[in-house]
Amino acid sequence: MVVDIKLVLVLDGIGESCTNILNFHGIQTISRPDILRKDLLNDLYAYDAIVVRPDTLVTKEIVAAAFRLKVVALASPGYGQIDVEAASHRGVSVIKYILECTFSAPNSTVISACELICGLLLAVAKHMRPARTAFSKGLWNYGSFKGTELKDRTVAIIGCGRVGKGVASRMSAFGMKIIGFDPFATQEQCEQYYISKMTQEEQPAFQQWLDIHSPLLQPTRNFINADVIRRCKTGVKIINVGRGGLINERDLLDALNSGQITSDSTEWDKEKGMIRKRRGEKRKAKEGLTSCQVGGAAIDVYEGRQKDPVTLSLIEHPSVIATPHIATSTTDVPVHAAKEIAEQIVNLVKPGTYSTMLSELNKIYD
Amino acid sequence: MVVDIKLVLVLDGIGESCTNILNFHGIQTISRPDILRKDLLNDLYAYDAIVVRPDTLVTKEIVAAAFRLKVVALASPGYGQIDVEAASHRGVSVIKYILECTFSAPNSTVISACELICGLLLAVAKHMRPARTAFSKGLWNYGSFKGTELKDRTVAIIGCGRVGKGVASRMSAFGMKIIGFDPFATQEQCEQYYISKMTQEEQPAFQQWLDIHSPLLQPTRNFINADVIRRCKTGVKIINVGRGGLINERDLLDALNSGQITSDSTEWDKEKGMIRKRRGEKRKAKEGLTSCQVGGAAIDVYEGRQKDPVTLSLIEHPSVIATPHIATSTTDVPVHAAKEIAEQIVNLVKPGTYSTMLSELNKIYD
Repeated sequence: MVVDIKLVLVLDGIGESCTNILNFHGIQTISRPDILRKDLLNDLYAYDAIVVRPDTLVTKEIVAAAFRLKVVALASPGYGQIDVEAASHRGVSVIKYILECTFSAPNSTVISACELICGLLLAVAKHMRPARTAFSKGLWNYGSFKGTELKDRTVAIIGCGRVGKGVASRMSAFGMKIIGFDPFATQEQCEQYYISKMTQEEQPAFQQWLDIHSPLLQPTRNFINADVIRRCKTGVKIINVGRGGLINERDLLDALNSGQITSDSTEWDKEKGMIRKRRGEKRKAKEGLTSCQVGGAAIDVYEGRQKDPVTLSLIEHPSVIATPHIATSTTDVPVHAAKEIAEQIVNLVKPGTYSTMLSELNKIYD
Repeated sequence: MVVDIKLVLVLDGIGESCTNILNFHGIQTISRPDILRKDLLNDLYAYDAIVVRPDTLVTKEIVAAAFRLKVVALASPGYGQIDVEAASHRGVSVIKYILECTFSAPNSTVISACELICGLLLAVAKHMRPARTAFSKGLWNYGSFKGTELKDRTVAIIGCGRVGKGVASRMSAFGMKIIGFDPFATQEQCEQYYISKMTQEEQPAFQQWLDIHSPLLQPTRNFINADVIRRCKTGVKIINVGRGGLINERDLLDALNSGQITSDSTEWDKEKGMIRKRRGEKRKAKEGLTSCQVGGAAIDVYEGRQKDPVTLSLIEHPSVIATPHIATSTTDVPVHAAKEIAEQIVNLVKPGTYSTMLSELNKIYD
């Protein structure tokens, strides 16, 4: 089970949070932040492992040139860019090898994602965006932005993995009640994070808040749709920092536009130079959504792109806080990833040194 | 110590969260949400107590007309609008009586204020505002908005009263380190809320975050000034949901404009139709501020008003999230206030029924 790794090539400017740990445990590192591709191919023969970011395409040439290579460590969650198409010209064995000896840093983005979700929960609750917009237009101390507190409200978390549990432990400090939906999380795991576990059949329990970050699979695609929304409380607020396809954007948009408009949809009336209140105003509701409209949403991931009118309408909807996929965009994520990767490498050389789990079973264990 | 309160007049639409509690304890209530002032003066003689919001001016006429009146309960924090000028024409005795038999609901706004502060901490950390602005201009997945995590960062809380402690307990769930400055809070009180208490002389300990919500008194006016900022870490972020005068706005603006510009000050370049990065760009720094600039701020209260150019520059600064005094603007605050007031009234009639403290010593205890 012990893997012989003496010399590690660290690319892509992956910094001291990786090399310090490796060096501390007697593993030599060479950092080449700006190496040219041809120089990389010439040098690779000397290394037992390479640490890369997704920027570096791990191709068949790399694996062929690195004949001592035992590990490709990807300092990022997921498996990034592996040149499957190029590799497949000469059969799948090369790419299979790459996949099998590659591991990644799945925990590195958890804290950043959790914090963004909590921030969005609060920003939607406090009508931070419309208040800011109105203020910028000269409206001081505008009492009509009546937000709500999160204390004693219930948030339903769909997907109680690392991120779901992290959101739960943080928001429980705000006095929120947390209910969780996840077929793979046990009752006991959930309780540790203050989550009351429920089954999918108990969906009507969805209350004031809905936070979804399950993986995007066939059963979870369009998980939030008109049918689910119909069972939620009127004015439910929805957060999606998971995957674009988890929400049926058409249904969400209809639900946002259905029934009574909440106060956060006040609009700036250019002609009159004043805020137009839309509280109590009714629009023609889509069938079945009359009494179950969505009161607000915060979204960081989208199904459509720049030309999809539904996606664009969602992004510009006055009750939506839309961010451009910034959940993992912090200066801390690369540092965590480099550390997580380094600890996994050390654990291969000196098993049990860190509590960090090896992120995937791979070839070195054969 | 027992006060005889049988009949309470509830004005201003103060709702069931007040009357239910009073009625439950056998105290009769009459709600008159839309009573005219002259009718009010005619009816007042019958009541032992009145419950009002700050909308109702408590004048000498009211006290004169309400000769059984033992309590004026103000369902709001502070003492709202008491017509001091009118009362002073006939001497101060009337207004003194009003003040002495008035109590309020100082806890009613604490949760809303705490939650807004935490939301602003997160919004500033994640560059939520500039990311949203760029997105609205067509920029998808813009990697340059590199926020920071709050975990393992230190926030210095100036003023460790109800709000400071509430922020501390919530943000400690995010893994923040909390240091507190408050001459009136004991070491033990602070520790209960995960706050490490420090003295003002230890100001250099101010680190990445600074959150101020002390009362505005002579020693706290302009508490955040160039001198304090100079002792903070470069790029410190400042939150003010307390009082406008706590920050010297000129100094904050200079500090925001001094030294290296952080990435959240990216700007939309209209001509080129693209984001212009300002990272690394240097401006002429105000003397002494070169290495201690402020990296971002969130502000809900201001010293100046619409015509003050410094205040306006602060509000529109790209590194500032400015909100129009919305800290206590939630639908929950009036409900809490009505409940807190009702519990205080019940405690006067049946001492010790609730743990709610009477908010001020008053005449009824003579």
